[in-house]
Amino acid sequence: MSSHANRSVFFVSDGTGITAETFADALLRQFEIRPKRVRLPFVDDADKAHQAVRQINHAAAVDGTRPLVFTTVVNMEVLQVLQQHCQGMLIDMFGTFIAPLEHELGMKSNHRVGRFSDVTKSREYHDRIEAINFTLEHDDGQTNENLEKSDVILIGVSRSGKTPTSLYLALQFGLKAANYPLIPEDFERRQLPPALLPHKKKLFGLTIDPQRLSEIRHERRPHSRYASLENCRYEVREAESLMRRAGIRILSTTHKSIEEIATIIRQDLEQLHGGR
Amino acid sequence: MSSHANRSVFFVSDGTGITAETFADALLRQFEIRPKRVRLPFVDDADKAHQAVRQINHAAAVDGTRPLVFTTVVNMEVLQVLQQHCQGMLIDMFGTFIAPLEHELGMKSNHRVGRFSDVTKSREYHDRIEAINFTLEHDDGQTNENLEKSDVILIGVSRSGKTPTSLYLALQFGLKAANYPLIPEDFERRQLPPALLPHKKKLFGLTIDPQRLSEIRHERRPHSRYASLENCRYEVREAESLMRRAGIRILSTTHKSIEEIATIIRQDLEQLHGGR
Repeated sequence: MSSHANRSVFFVSDGTGITAETFADALLRQFEIRPKRVRLPFVDDADKAHQAVRQINHAAAVDGTRPLVFTTVVNMEVLQVLQQHCQGMLIDMFGTFIAPLEHELGMKSNHRVGRFSDVTKSREYHDRIEAINFTLEHDDGQTNENLEKSDVILIGVSRSGKTPTSLYLALQFGLKAANYPLIPEDFERRQLPPALLPHKKKLFGLTIDPQRLSEIRHERRPHSRYASLENCRYEVREAESLMRRAGIRILSTTHKSIEEIATIIRQDLEQLHGGR
Repeated sequence: MSSHANRSVFFVSDGTGITAETFADALLRQFEIRPKRVRLPFVDDADKAHQAVRQINHAAAVDGTRPLVFTTVVNMEVLQVLQQHCQGMLIDMFGTFIAPLEHELGMKSNHRVGRFSDVTKSREYHDRIEAINFTLEHDDGQTNENLEKSDVILIGVSRSGKTPTSLYLALQFGLKAANYPLIPEDFERRQLPPALLPHKKKLFGLTIDPQRLSEIRHERRPHSRYASLENCRYEVREAESLMRRAGIRILSTTHKSIEEIATIIRQDLEQLHGGR
Protein backbone atom coordinates (compact mmCIF):
# COMPACT_ATOMS: atom_id res chain seq x y z
CA MET A 1 0.00 0.00 0.00
CA SER A 2 2.69 2.48 0.94
CA SER A 3 4.50 1.61 -2.30
CA HIS A 4 1.47 3.06 -4.10
CA ALA A 5 1.49 0.03 -6.40
CA ASN A 6 -2.22 0.60 -6.93
CA ARG A 7 -1.61 4.17 -8.00
CA SER A 8 -1.55 5.01 -11.71
CA VAL A 9 0.53 7.73 -13.27
CA PHE A 10 -0.45 9.19 -16.63
CA PHE A 11 1.74 11.25 -18.92
CA VAL A 12 -0.48 13.28 -21.23
CA SER A 13 0.90 15.42 -24.03
CA ASP A 14 -0.19 16.90 -27.33
CA GLY A 15 3.26 16.08 -28.67
CA THR A 16 5.50 13.09 -28.05
CA GLY A 17 5.23 13.45 -24.27
CA ILE A 18 8.96 12.78 -23.93
CA THR A 19 9.49 16.07 -22.09
CA ALA A 20 6.57 15.41 -19.75
CA GLU A 21 7.73 11.92 -18.98
CA THR A 22 11.40 12.74 -18.49
CA PHE A 23 10.58 15.55 -16.15
CA ALA A 24 7.87 13.68 -14.28
CA ASP A 25 10.23 10.73 -13.88
CA ALA A 26 12.73 12.99 -12.19
CA LEU A 27 9.99 14.13 -9.80
CA LEU A 28 8.72 10.60 -9.13
CA ARG A 29 12.24 9.41 -8.39
CA GLN A 30 12.03 11.57 -5.27
CA PHE A 31 9.48 9.15 -3.85
CA GLU A 32 9.74 5.48 -2.98
CA ILE A 33 6.80 4.47 -5.12
CA ARG A 34 6.31 2.06 -8.00
CA PRO A 35 3.14 3.22 -9.71
CA LYS A 36 1.64 1.86 -12.91
CA ARG A 37 2.61 4.06 -15.83
CA VAL A 38 0.53 5.00 -18.85
CA ARG A 39 1.73 7.25 -21.68
CA LEU A 40 -0.79 9.16 -23.75
CA PRO A 41 1.08 11.08 -26.48
CA PHE A 42 -0.43 13.07 -29.36
CA VAL A 43 -3.61 14.05 -27.46
CA ASP A 44 -4.23 17.04 -29.69
CA ASP A 45 -7.98 17.51 -30.00
CA ALA A 46 -11.06 17.43 -27.80
CA ASP A 47 -12.05 13.91 -28.89
CA LYS A 48 -8.70 12.46 -27.91
CA ALA A 49 -8.87 14.46 -24.67
CA HIS A 50 -12.20 12.88 -23.78
CA GLN A 51 -10.76 9.47 -24.58
CA ALA A 52 -7.79 10.19 -22.29
CA VAL A 53 -10.19 11.31 -19.56
CA ARG A 54 -12.13 8.05 -19.84
CA GLN A 55 -8.91 6.07 -19.41
CA ILE A 56 -7.82 8.15 -16.44
CA ASN A 57 -11.20 7.99 -14.73
CA HIS A 58 -11.38 4.25 -15.32
CA ALA A 59 -8.00 3.86 -13.59
CA ALA A 60 -9.23 6.01 -10.70
CA ALA A 61 -12.22 3.68 -10.24
CA VAL A 62 -10.17 0.48 -10.54
CA ASP A 63 -7.30 1.72 -8.34
CA GLY A 64 -9.55 3.22 -5.69
CA THR A 65 -7.16 6.16 -5.58
CA ARG A 66 -6.83 9.12 -7.92
CA PRO A 67 -4.10 8.88 -10.56
CA LEU A 68 -1.33 11.42 -10.94
CA VAL A 69 -1.74 13.09 -14.32
CA PHE A 70 1.37 14.89 -15.56
CA THR A 71 0.65 17.01 -18.58
CA THR A 72 2.49 19.36 -20.91
CA VAL A 73 -0.57 19.97 -23.06
CA VAL A 74 -0.44 23.38 -24.75
CA ASN A 75 -3.70 23.16 -26.69
CA MET A 76 -6.24 25.06 -24.55
CA GLU A 77 -9.20 23.02 -25.72
CA VAL A 78 -7.50 19.79 -24.67
CA LEU A 79 -6.39 21.28 -21.38
CA GLN A 80 -9.93 22.41 -20.55
CA VAL A 81 -11.34 18.94 -21.12
CA LEU A 82 -8.73 17.56 -18.74
CA GLN A 83 -9.35 20.27 -16.16
CA GLN A 84 -13.11 19.86 -16.22
CA HIS A 85 -13.53 16.09 -16.42
CA CYS A 86 -10.41 14.26 -15.26
CA GLN A 87 -10.66 12.71 -11.80
CA GLY A 88 -6.91 12.50 -11.39
CA MET A 89 -4.57 14.96 -9.73
CA LEU A 90 -3.74 17.18 -12.71
CA ILE A 91 -0.17 18.44 -12.68
CA ASP A 92 -0.05 21.09 -15.40
CA MET A 93 3.67 21.41 -15.93
CA PHE A 94 3.24 23.97 -18.65
CA GLY A 95 0.54 26.29 -17.41
CA THR A 96 2.15 26.52 -14.00
CA PHE A 97 5.14 28.33 -15.46
CA ILE A 98 3.72 29.96 -18.58
CA ALA A 99 1.68 32.57 -16.69
CA PRO A 100 4.58 33.91 -14.58
CA LEU A 101 6.83 33.87 -17.66
CA GLU A 102 4.26 35.85 -19.67
CA HIS A 103 4.24 38.41 -16.89
CA GLU A 104 8.02 38.58 -16.63
CA LEU A 105 8.59 38.81 -20.39
CA GLY A 106 5.70 41.19 -20.96
CA MET A 107 4.30 39.11 -23.81
CA LYS A 108 1.76 36.38 -24.46
CA SER A 109 2.84 32.83 -25.15
CA ASN A 110 1.85 31.42 -28.51
CA HIS A 111 0.34 28.16 -27.21
CA ARG A 112 2.17 26.22 -29.81
CA VAL A 113 2.43 22.46 -29.46
CA GLY A 114 5.94 21.38 -28.39
CA ARG A 115 7.44 21.81 -31.85
CA PHE A 116 7.52 24.17 -34.78
CA SER A 117 5.12 23.37 -37.59
CA ASP A 118 7.58 21.08 -39.31
CA VAL A 119 10.61 20.44 -37.20
CA THR A 120 12.28 18.41 -39.94
CA LYS A 121 12.76 21.55 -41.99
CA SER A 122 14.67 23.42 -39.30
CA ARG A 123 18.41 24.03 -39.53
CA GLU A 124 18.91 22.66 -36.03
CA TYR A 125 17.21 19.39 -36.89
CA HIS A 126 19.18 19.05 -40.10
CA ASP A 127 22.43 19.58 -38.20
CA ARG A 128 21.45 16.98 -35.65
CA ILE A 129 20.81 14.35 -38.32
CA GLU A 130 24.14 15.28 -39.91
CA ALA A 131 25.82 14.84 -36.54
CA ILE A 132 24.29 11.38 -36.14
CA ASN A 133 25.48 10.32 -39.59
CA PHE A 134 28.95 11.72 -38.95
CA THR A 135 29.16 9.99 -35.59
CA LEU A 136 28.14 6.62 -36.98
CA GLU A 137 30.60 6.88 -39.86
CA HIS A 138 33.36 7.76 -37.40
CA ASP A 139 32.54 5.13 -34.82
CA ASP A 140 35.43 2.98 -33.65
CA GLY A 141 37.98 4.65 -35.91
CA GLN A 142 36.25 3.39 -39.05
CA THR A 143 37.54 6.24 -41.15
CA ASN A 144 40.00 9.13 -40.87
CA GLU A 145 38.17 11.12 -43.52
CA ASN A 146 36.79 14.48 -42.44
CA LEU A 147 38.09 14.06 -38.90
CA GLU A 148 38.76 17.81 -38.97
CA LYS A 149 35.00 18.38 -39.10
CA SER A 150 34.42 16.65 -35.78
CA ASP A 151 33.51 18.64 -32.67
CA VAL A 152 35.23 16.09 -30.45
CA ILE A 153 37.14 12.83 -30.84
CA LEU A 154 36.82 10.37 -27.97
CA ILE A 155 39.68 7.98 -27.40
CA GLY A 156 40.06 5.05 -25.01
CA VAL A 157 40.44 1.29 -24.81
CA SER A 158 37.75 -0.99 -26.20
CA ARG A 159 34.55 -0.88 -24.04
CA SER A 160 35.48 2.23 -22.11
CA GLY A 161 32.21 3.88 -23.15
CA LYS A 162 33.21 5.73 -26.32
CA THR A 163 30.43 4.57 -28.62
CA PRO A 164 27.33 5.16 -26.45
CA THR A 165 28.75 8.53 -25.37
CA SER A 166 29.42 9.56 -28.97
CA LEU A 167 25.91 8.63 -30.01
CA TYR A 168 24.39 10.53 -27.11
CA LEU A 169 26.46 13.62 -27.92
CA ALA A 170 25.14 13.48 -31.49
CA LEU A 171 21.51 12.64 -30.77
CA GLN A 172 20.95 14.89 -27.77
CA PHE A 173 23.36 17.74 -28.35
CA GLY A 174 23.90 17.64 -32.13
CA LEU A 175 27.67 17.30 -31.77
CA LYS A 176 29.80 15.53 -34.35
CA ALA A 177 31.57 13.03 -32.12
CA ALA A 178 34.14 10.69 -33.65
CA ASN A 179 35.64 7.94 -31.55
CA TYR A 180 38.87 6.04 -31.89
CA PRO A 181 40.02 2.96 -30.04
CA LEU A 182 43.44 2.73 -28.42
CA ILE A 183 44.83 -0.70 -29.18
CA PRO A 184 47.89 -2.77 -28.17
CA GLU A 185 49.75 -1.52 -31.24
CA ASP A 186 49.48 2.05 -29.92
CA PHE A 187 50.76 0.95 -26.52
CA GLU A 188 53.79 -0.74 -28.07
CA ARG A 189 54.60 2.32 -30.13
CA ARG A 190 53.83 4.44 -27.05
CA GLN A 191 52.18 6.98 -29.34
CA LEU A 192 48.71 8.09 -30.21
CA PRO A 193 47.37 6.74 -33.52
CA PRO A 194 49.11 8.92 -36.14
CA ALA A 195 45.79 9.97 -37.75
CA LEU A 196 44.84 11.71 -34.49
CA LEU A 197 47.98 13.82 -34.08
CA PRO A 198 46.72 16.78 -36.18
CA HIS A 199 43.55 16.90 -34.04
CA LYS A 200 45.05 16.85 -30.58
CA LYS A 201 42.90 19.73 -29.34
CA LYS A 202 39.74 17.81 -30.09
CA LEU A 203 40.77 14.68 -28.25
CA PHE A 204 39.03 13.65 -25.06
CA GLY A 205 40.18 10.53 -23.22
CA LEU A 206 37.81 8.08 -21.56
CA THR A 207 39.18 5.68 -18.99
CA ILE A 208 37.64 3.07 -16.73
CA ASP A 209 38.47 1.01 -13.69
CA PRO A 210 40.19 -2.22 -14.94
CA GLN A 211 38.02 -4.40 -12.71
CA ARG A 212 34.83 -2.94 -14.20
CA LEU A 213 36.29 -3.12 -17.71
CA SER A 214 37.06 -6.80 -17.21
CA GLU A 215 33.45 -7.45 -16.11
CA ILE A 216 32.05 -5.67 -19.17
CA ARG A 217 34.40 -7.48 -21.54
CA HIS A 218 33.61 -10.85 -19.92
CA GLU A 219 29.95 -10.36 -20.81
CA ARG A 220 30.94 -10.07 -24.45
CA ARG A 221 33.79 -12.55 -24.65
CA PRO A 222 33.83 -14.80 -21.59
CA HIS A 223 37.16 -16.24 -20.48
CA SER A 224 39.11 -14.48 -23.21
CA ARG A 225 42.55 -12.99 -22.73
CA TYR A 226 40.93 -9.76 -23.99
CA ALA A 227 38.65 -9.74 -20.93
CA SER A 228 41.17 -10.92 -18.35
CA LEU A 229 41.81 -8.61 -15.45
CA GLU A 230 45.52 -8.74 -16.15
CA ASN A 231 45.09 -7.56 -19.73
CA CYS A 232 42.56 -4.89 -18.74
CA ARG A 233 45.01 -3.56 -16.16
CA TYR A 234 47.73 -3.42 -18.78
CA GLU A 235 45.59 -1.66 -21.39
CA VAL A 236 44.15 0.91 -19.00
CA ARG A 237 47.56 1.73 -17.54
CA GLU A 238 49.10 2.16 -20.98
CA ALA A 239 46.14 4.14 -22.34
CA GLU A 240 46.18 6.52 -19.39
CA SER A 241 49.89 7.09 -19.67
CA LEU A 242 49.54 7.72 -23.42
CA MET A 243 46.84 10.29 -22.77
CA ARG A 244 48.74 11.93 -19.96
CA ARG A 245 51.92 12.25 -22.00
CA ALA A 246 49.92 13.84 -24.81
CA GLY A 247 48.27 16.27 -22.39
CA ILE A 248 44.74 15.12 -23.15
CA ARG A 249 41.84 15.56 -20.76
CA ILE A 250 40.89 12.25 -19.11
CA LEU A 251 37.54 11.26 -17.64
CA SER A 252 36.73 8.05 -15.79
CA THR A 253 33.46 6.50 -16.92
CA THR A 254 33.35 3.84 -14.20
CA HIS A 255 30.55 5.33 -12.12
CA LYS A 256 29.05 7.73 -14.65
CA SER A 257 26.03 7.43 -16.90
CA ILE A 258 26.34 8.38 -20.56
CA GLU A 259 24.28 11.50 -19.81
CA GLU A 260 26.81 12.54 -17.18
CA ILE A 261 29.83 11.79 -19.36
CA ALA A 262 28.28 13.64 -22.31
CA THR A 263 27.41 16.66 -20.15
CA ILE A 264 30.95 16.88 -18.77
CA ILE A 265 32.39 16.70 -22.29
CA ARG A 266 30.01 19.38 -23.55
CA GLN A 267 30.91 21.67 -20.66
CA ASP A 268 34.54 21.15 -21.47
CA LEU A 269 34.01 21.98 -25.15
CA GLU A 270 32.07 25.11 -24.26
CA GLN A 271 34.81 26.32 -21.97
CA LEU A 272 37.33 25.74 -24.76
CA HIS A 273 35.33 27.49 -27.43
CA GLY A 274 33.55 30.04 -25.27
CA GLY A 275 30.05 28.64 -25.46
CA ARG A 276 27.69 28.12 -28.38
CA MET B 1 14.52 44.75 -27.41
CA SER B 2 11.29 42.80 -27.73
CA SER B 3 13.31 39.75 -28.83
CA HIS B 4 14.86 39.83 -25.36
CA ALA B 5 18.28 39.37 -26.94
CA ASN B 6 19.74 41.05 -23.89
CA ARG B 7 18.04 38.60 -21.58
CA SER B 8 20.03 35.67 -20.19
CA VAL B 9 18.59 32.29 -19.37
CA PHE B 10 20.37 30.00 -16.92
CA PHE B 11 19.81 26.29 -16.46
CA VAL B 12 21.02 25.28 -13.02
CA SER B 13 21.06 21.69 -11.85
CA ASP B 14 22.84 19.53 -9.31
CA GLY B 15 22.89 16.77 -11.94
CA THR B 16 23.42 16.97 -15.70
CA GLY B 17 20.72 19.59 -16.10
CA ILE B 18 19.41 17.81 -19.18
CA THR B 19 15.93 17.52 -17.67
CA ALA B 20 15.90 21.17 -16.68
CA GLU B 21 17.06 22.32 -20.07
CA THR B 22 14.76 20.10 -22.14
CA PHE B 23 11.76 21.18 -20.15
CA ALA B 24 12.72 24.84 -20.03
CA ASP B 25 13.32 24.78 -23.78
CA ALA B 26 9.78 23.56 -24.32
CA LEU B 27 8.55 26.49 -22.18
CA LEU B 28 10.75 29.05 -23.92
CA ARG B 29 9.59 27.86 -27.34
CA GLN B 30 6.22 29.33 -26.38
CA PHE B 31 7.75 32.79 -26.63
CA GLU B 32 9.30 34.62 -29.56
CA ILE B 33 12.56 35.33 -27.77
CA ARG B 34 16.19 34.53 -28.45
CA PRO B 35 17.90 34.85 -25.10
CA LYS B 36 21.51 34.06 -24.28
CA ARG B 37 21.77 30.60 -22.75
CA VAL B 38 24.09 29.43 -20.00
CA ARG B 39 24.14 25.90 -18.63
CA LEU B 40 25.39 25.28 -15.12
CA PRO B 41 25.33 21.52 -14.44
CA PHE B 42 26.68 19.70 -11.37
CA VAL B 43 26.04 22.59 -8.95
CA ASP B 44 25.97 20.30 -5.94
CA ASP B 45 27.39 22.21 -2.99
CA ALA B 46 27.15 25.67 -1.43
CA ASP B 47 30.45 26.82 -2.96
CA LYS B 48 29.35 26.01 -6.46
CA ALA B 49 25.97 27.60 -5.71
CA HIS B 50 27.66 30.86 -4.73
CA GLN B 51 29.72 30.70 -7.90
CA ALA B 52 26.54 30.20 -9.95
CA VAL B 53 24.95 33.16 -8.16
CA ARG B 54 27.92 35.36 -9.03
CA GLN B 55 27.56 34.43 -12.69
CA ILE B 56 23.81 35.06 -12.67
CA ASN B 57 24.10 38.38 -10.86
CA HIS B 58 26.86 39.48 -13.20
CA ALA B 59 24.58 38.76 -16.18
CA ALA B 60 21.79 40.71 -14.50
CA ALA B 61 24.08 43.73 -14.18
CA VAL B 62 25.44 43.48 -17.74
CA ASP B 63 22.04 42.77 -19.34
CA GLY B 64 20.21 45.40 -17.36
CA THR B 65 17.37 42.92 -16.97
CA ARG B 66 17.00 40.01 -14.61
CA PRO B 67 17.88 36.58 -16.04
CA LEU B 68 15.48 33.66 -16.08
CA VAL B 69 16.92 30.93 -13.87
CA PHE B 70 15.44 27.49 -14.47
CA THR B 71 16.48 25.03 -11.82
CA THR B 72 15.89 21.41 -10.91
CA VAL B 73 18.21 21.56 -7.92
CA VAL B 74 17.22 19.03 -5.26
CA ASN B 75 19.96 19.78 -2.74
CA MET B 76 18.34 22.09 -0.17
CA GLU B 77 21.56 23.86 0.70
CA VAL B 78 22.16 24.77 -2.93
CA LEU B 79 18.56 25.82 -3.42
CA GLN B 80 18.70 28.13 -0.41
CA VAL B 81 21.78 29.90 -1.72
CA LEU B 82 19.97 30.49 -5.00
CA GLN B 83 16.79 31.64 -3.28
CA GLN B 84 18.59 34.05 -0.98
CA HIS B 85 21.19 35.58 -3.27
CA CYS B 86 20.29 35.17 -6.92
CA GLN B 87 18.98 38.31 -8.61
CA GLY B 88 17.33 36.36 -11.42
CA MET B 89 13.75 35.15 -11.69
CA LEU B 90 14.11 31.75 -10.03
CA ILE B 91 11.90 29.10 -11.60
CA ASP B 92 12.08 26.15 -9.23
CA MET B 93 10.77 23.37 -11.44
CA PHE B 94 11.23 20.78 -8.75
CA GLY B 95 10.02 22.42 -5.57
CA THR B 96 6.91 23.72 -7.29
CA PHE B 97 5.62 20.19 -7.74
CA ILE B 98 7.31 18.29 -4.92
CA ALA B 99 5.22 19.88 -2.16
CA PRO B 100 1.81 19.04 -3.69
CA LEU B 101 3.06 15.54 -4.54
CA GLU B 102 4.23 14.99 -0.96
CA HIS B 103 0.78 15.97 0.20
CA GLU B 104 -1.01 13.76 -2.32
CA LEU B 105 1.18 10.72 -1.70
CA GLY B 106 1.26 11.19 2.05
CA MET B 107 5.03 10.87 2.22
CA LYS B 108 8.17 12.98 2.22
CA SER B 109 10.38 13.18 -0.84
CA ASN B 110 13.93 11.98 -0.37
CA HIS B 111 15.64 15.04 -1.89
CA ARG B 112 17.90 12.85 -3.88
CA VAL B 113 19.87 14.33 -6.75
CA GLY B 114 18.43 13.28 -10.12
CA ARG B 115 19.94 9.81 -10.05
CA PHE B 116 20.47 6.85 -7.79
CA SER B 117 23.82 6.67 -6.06
CA ASP B 118 25.39 4.83 -9.00
CA VAL B 119 23.13 4.70 -11.99
CA THR B 120 25.58 2.55 -13.93
CA LYS B 121 24.87 -0.37 -11.61
CA SER B 122 21.12 -0.38 -12.23
CA ARG B 123 19.45 -3.07 -14.31
CA GLU B 124 17.70 -0.43 -16.41
CA TYR B 125 20.96 1.25 -17.31
CA HIS B 126 22.59 -2.05 -18.16
CA ASP B 127 19.68 -2.94 -20.45
CA ARG B 128 19.91 0.42 -22.17
CA ILE B 129 23.61 -0.04 -22.94
CA GLU B 130 22.82 -3.55 -24.21
CA ALA B 131 20.11 -2.07 -26.43
CA ILE B 132 22.57 0.45 -27.88
CA ASN B 133 25.11 -2.27 -28.63
CA PHE B 134 22.45 -4.48 -30.17
CA THR B 135 21.11 -1.64 -32.29
CA LEU B 136 24.54 -0.70 -33.61
CA GLU B 137 25.38 -4.30 -34.45
CA HIS B 138 22.07 -4.62 -36.29
CA ASP B 139 22.24 -1.34 -38.15
CA ASP B 140 21.60 -1.48 -41.88
CA GLY B 141 21.10 -5.25 -41.96
CA GLN B 142 24.70 -5.87 -40.93
CA THR B 143 23.88 -9.21 -39.36
CA ASN B 144 20.96 -11.60 -39.09
CA GLU B 145 22.28 -13.08 -35.88
CA ASN B 146 20.02 -12.76 -32.86
CA LEU B 147 17.34 -10.92 -34.83
CA GLU B 148 14.84 -12.82 -32.66
CA LYS B 149 16.07 -10.82 -29.67
CA SER B 150 15.07 -7.50 -31.21
CA ASP B 151 12.10 -5.53 -29.93
CA VAL B 152 11.45 -4.09 -33.35
CA ILE B 153 12.96 -4.30 -36.84
CA LEU B 154 12.63 -1.18 -38.98
CA ILE B 155 12.59 -1.63 -42.74
CA GLY B 156 12.59 0.88 -45.57
CA VAL B 157 14.62 2.21 -48.48
CA SER B 158 18.03 3.76 -47.92
CA ARG B 159 17.76 7.19 -46.15
CA SER B 160 14.16 6.77 -45.07
CA GLY B 161 15.14 7.44 -41.43
CA LYS B 162 15.79 3.93 -40.13
CA THR B 163 19.17 4.48 -38.50
CA PRO B 164 18.54 7.66 -36.47
CA THR B 165 15.18 6.26 -35.35
CA SER B 166 16.74 2.96 -34.27
CA LEU B 167 19.42 4.75 -32.28
CA TYR B 168 16.88 6.97 -30.59
CA LEU B 169 14.71 3.98 -29.67
CA ALA B 170 17.75 2.37 -28.06
CA LEU B 171 19.22 5.41 -26.32
CA GLN B 172 16.03 6.99 -25.07
CA PHE B 173 13.70 4.03 -24.60
CA GLY B 174 16.14 1.12 -24.18
CA LEU B 175 14.60 -0.82 -27.07
CA LYS B 176 16.62 -3.25 -29.16
CA ALA B 177 15.92 -1.85 -32.61
CA ALA B 178 17.38 -3.60 -35.64
CA ASN B 179 17.05 -2.02 -39.05
CA TYR B 180 17.18 -3.53 -42.49
CA PRO B 181 17.34 -1.79 -45.85
CA LEU B 182 15.01 -2.67 -48.71
CA ILE B 183 17.10 -2.78 -51.87
CA PRO B 184 16.46 -3.17 -55.63
CA GLU B 185 17.05 -6.92 -55.31
CA ASP B 186 14.08 -7.16 -52.97
CA PHE B 187 11.91 -5.18 -55.37
CA GLU B 188 12.82 -7.47 -58.25
CA ARG B 189 12.02 -10.57 -56.23
CA ARG B 190 8.93 -8.75 -54.93
CA GLN B 191 9.56 -10.30 -51.53
CA LEU B 192 10.85 -9.17 -48.17
CA PRO B 193 14.47 -10.13 -47.46
CA PRO B 194 14.25 -13.84 -46.52
CA ALA B 195 16.00 -13.32 -43.17
CA LEU B 196 13.08 -11.14 -42.05
CA LEU B 197 10.27 -13.55 -42.81
CA PRO B 198 10.38 -15.35 -39.44
CA HIS B 199 10.12 -11.98 -37.66
CA LYS B 200 7.18 -10.48 -39.51
CA LYS B 201 5.41 -9.39 -36.33
CA LYS B 202 8.36 -7.25 -35.34
CA LEU B 203 8.62 -5.42 -38.64
CA PHE B 204 7.76 -1.76 -38.89
CA GLY B 205 7.96 -0.02 -42.25
CA LEU B 206 9.26 3.52 -42.72
CA THR B 207 8.45 5.35 -45.90
CA ILE B 208 9.10 8.87 -47.16
CA ASP B 209 7.96 11.24 -49.87
CA PRO B 210 10.11 10.53 -52.99
CA GLN B 211 10.79 14.23 -53.52
CA ARG B 212 12.16 14.60 -50.00
CA LEU B 213 14.12 11.34 -50.32
CA SER B 214 15.71 12.61 -53.51
CA GLU B 215 16.79 15.82 -51.73
CA ILE B 216 18.33 13.88 -48.86
CA ARG B 217 20.15 11.50 -51.18
CA HIS B 218 21.43 14.38 -53.34
CA GLU B 219 23.17 15.81 -50.28
CA ARG B 220 25.08 12.57 -49.95
CA ARG B 221 25.62 11.62 -53.58
CA PRO B 222 24.92 14.57 -55.86
CA HIS B 223 23.73 13.83 -59.39
CA SER B 224 23.73 10.07 -58.88
CA ARG B 225 21.12 7.74 -60.30
CA TYR B 226 20.62 6.65 -56.66
CA ALA B 227 19.45 10.17 -55.79
CA SER B 228 17.40 10.84 -58.94
CA LEU B 229 13.74 11.59 -58.41
CA GLU B 230 12.83 8.87 -60.87
CA ASN B 231 14.73 6.21 -58.95
CA CYS B 232 13.42 7.46 -55.59
CA ARG B 233 9.86 7.24 -56.92
CA TYR B 234 10.49 3.69 -58.09
CA GLU B 235 12.06 2.55 -54.81
CA VAL B 236 9.41 4.11 -52.59
CA ARG B 237 6.56 2.71 -54.67
CA GLU B 238 8.03 -0.78 -54.66
CA ALA B 239 8.92 -0.66 -50.96
CA GLU B 240 5.42 0.46 -50.00
CA SER B 241 3.80 -2.22 -52.07
CA LEU B 242 6.11 -4.85 -50.55
CA MET B 243 5.15 -3.69 -47.06
CA ARG B 244 1.48 -3.54 -47.86
CA ARG B 245 1.41 -7.01 -49.34
CA ALA B 246 3.16 -8.33 -46.24
CA GLY B 247 0.66 -6.57 -43.99
CA ILE B 248 3.30 -4.50 -42.20
CA ARG B 249 2.55 -1.21 -40.46
CA ILE B 250 3.82 1.75 -42.48
CA LEU B 251 4.75 5.19 -41.21
CA SER B 252 5.77 8.18 -43.31
CA THR B 253 8.79 10.00 -41.89
CA THR B 254 8.62 12.97 -44.28
CA HIS B 255 7.37 15.56 -41.80
CA LYS B 256 8.22 13.81 -38.53
CA SER B 257 11.14 14.23 -36.17
CA ILE B 258 12.93 11.14 -34.89
CA GLU B 259 11.31 11.75 -31.49
CA GLU B 260 7.88 11.62 -33.08
CA ILE B 261 8.63 8.55 -35.17
CA ALA B 262 10.12 6.75 -32.17
CA THR B 263 7.15 7.64 -29.97
CA ILE B 264 4.67 6.32 -32.52
CA ILE B 265 6.62 3.08 -32.84
CA ARG B 266 6.78 2.66 -29.07
CA GLN B 267 3.03 3.25 -28.76
CA ASP B 268 2.47 0.65 -31.42
CA LEU B 269 4.69 -1.87 -29.64
CA GLU B 270 2.93 -1.25 -26.35
CA GLN B 271 -0.47 -1.80 -27.89
CA LEU B 272 0.83 -5.06 -29.37
CA HIS B 273 2.37 -6.33 -26.15
CA GLY B 274 0.06 -4.70 -23.64
CA GLY B 275 2.43 -2.11 -22.24
CA ARG B 276 5.64 -2.38 -20.26
